Amino acid sequence: MEFVQTIQETKNIIKEWEKSGFTIGLVPTMGFLHEGHESLIKKAASENDKVVVSIFVNPIQFGPTEDLDTYPRNLDRDKKVCENAGTNLIFNPAPEEMYFDNAVTSVTVGELTNGLCGSKRPIHFQGVCTVVSKLFNIVTPDKAYFGEKDAQQLAVIKRMVRDLNFDIDIIGCPIVREEDGLAKSSRNTYLSDSERKAALVLNESLKLAKKALENGEVHASKLTHVISEKINSEPLAKIDYIEIVDSIDLKPVCKISSSILVAIAVYIGKTRLIDNFTWNTNDNK
Amino acid sequence: MEFVQTIQETKNIIKEWEKSGFTIGLVPTMGFLHEGHESLIKKAASENDKVVVSIFVNPIQFGPTEDLDTYPRNLDRDKKVCENAGTNLIFNPAPEEMYFDNAVTSVTVGELTNGLCGSKRPIHFQGVCTVVSKLFNIVTPDKAYFGEKDAQQLAVIKRMVRDLNFDIDIIGCPIVREEDGLAKSSRNTYLSDSERKAALVLNESLKLAKKALENGEVHASKLTHVISEKINSEPLAKIDYIEIVDSIDLKPVCKISSSILVAIAVYIGKTRLIDNFTWNTNDNK
Repeated sequence: MEFVQTIQETKNIIKEWEKSGFTIGLVPTMGFLHEGHESLIKKAASENDKVVVSIFVNPIQFGPTEDLDTYPRNLDRDKKVCENAGTNLIFNPAPEEMYFDNAVTSVTVGELTNGLCGSKRPIHFQGVCTVVSKLFNIVTPDKAYFGEKDAQQLAVIKRMVRDLNFDIDIIGCPIVREEDGLAKSSRNTYLSDSERKAALVLNESLKLAKKALENGEVHASKLTHVISEKINSEPLAKIDYIEIVDSIDLKPVCKISSSILVAIAVYIGKTRLIDNFTWNTNDNK
Repeated sequence: MEFVQTIQETKNIIKEWEKSGFTIGLVPTMGFLHEGHESLIKKAASENDKVVVSIFVNPIQFGPTEDLDTYPRNLDRDKKVCENAGTNLIFNPAPEEMYFDNAVTSVTVGELTNGLCGSKRPIHFQGVCTVVSKLFNIVTPDKAYFGEKDAQQLAVIKRMVRDLNFDIDIIGCPIVREEDGLAKSSRNTYLSDSERKAALVLNESLKLAKKALENGEVHASKLTHVISEKINSEPLAKIDYIEIVDSIDLKPVCKISSSILVAIAVYIGKTRLIDNFTWNTNDNK
């Protein structure tokens, strides 16, 4: 496994691989890898000749009051996870390698970034789309892998790839959960013991909503109510948003008649966690 | 020479070329080709195995009051110009081929697009950067060719390519002029006979500024005065802007001490024309 910190060296290795006709899978990450990332890397390894994992805590996708400085890091462990999961190259640039002081170019995906996390984190998706565009141009992968936990990110990246004609297949991979149901996240490490228990309320509230759908509920407002009631029953939890949206264009839906995304963001103490599921009206048939 | 109207067919041909190891030069145009474009195509043909010319009047770079509907077109003549200059593939998509109805992704280059044409045409450069990004992803050229007449566009594209890590060399090519000095432009066709004569004032005013620089002038305000006095002497001409800026970051300069761009936009009747020259302080040594 190669460990590379410069753009040029990465490009050089990629060019050699392309000359040999190898297909390339990219897994963009911010490091502090968990089993969710691992599942992306393994899937990439099963579908491509070569796998690149980028590990880069991207400063421009964090707002001024967010957790850029405290975002958890453990490069030594990340290297082991990558190696074991079948990575061929880790790309781990410093921020100054990725951004010139006078960098002024950004990629934005309108509309899809207005709601959900986009409305709470106004610069977030511009930062994500810009860095992902850069990674795509540096690594030129055939396929790129993103977790379905960041459902809005996945929808936004898919739209960006379509709109800008990137010749890359975007592969979404299922949420990986702890045994008790909490979605894996690098930010789970922020939680105290009592918060860790309280965090179960995210998945549990979604399970209630799913049950309601299975029982034939078609009103988004009822689903929202089911979820909010459950979350509000947990004293350490504070709702950031509960949204029922079309799974493709992320526009809010009132009556469930197509494929929907049920997405929530909840503060557990000071830690903001997200979770979601998608539901197709055919799922009940 | 291939003439292709779909993205997929273009990609297929490009992939075959890449398999054969051919280098590819791209000349993005809006058609109605003149000797300026021809010089770009010939340069591309001399430096690459294959040359792609895109002919696409890009709707998203025109403001609502601009000349999208009347922009001159002559595809038959364009094909001949392309063939004679050494083009291998013309990519001529319809607007619906390039933009889905629900396209929402855009590429912006901040700061560099605040002044000059950017301040007069607020959505222009976002439209340019977005379509050029798309063309880069579709054609994946090794080199792309742009005229120095659109000096701000050239600086903006160079910055975009650097910031987003496109692996493409951007080649600027000198302004091609009519015998009497008017910069070649597809929009020159809008001019009446008297306007055509009046339009000479653009180049003539720039020549006066250049002479002042050669004579040691270092104050931007003096250059602006020389240019505006000349343009104002022509009754059919109306100044849109006169700007003296750093040639790389396009920030206004007061005292000339580096490489500068002297750029003007002038209405001749209803037709807006641009012209410019770059000047390096070393040019006098």
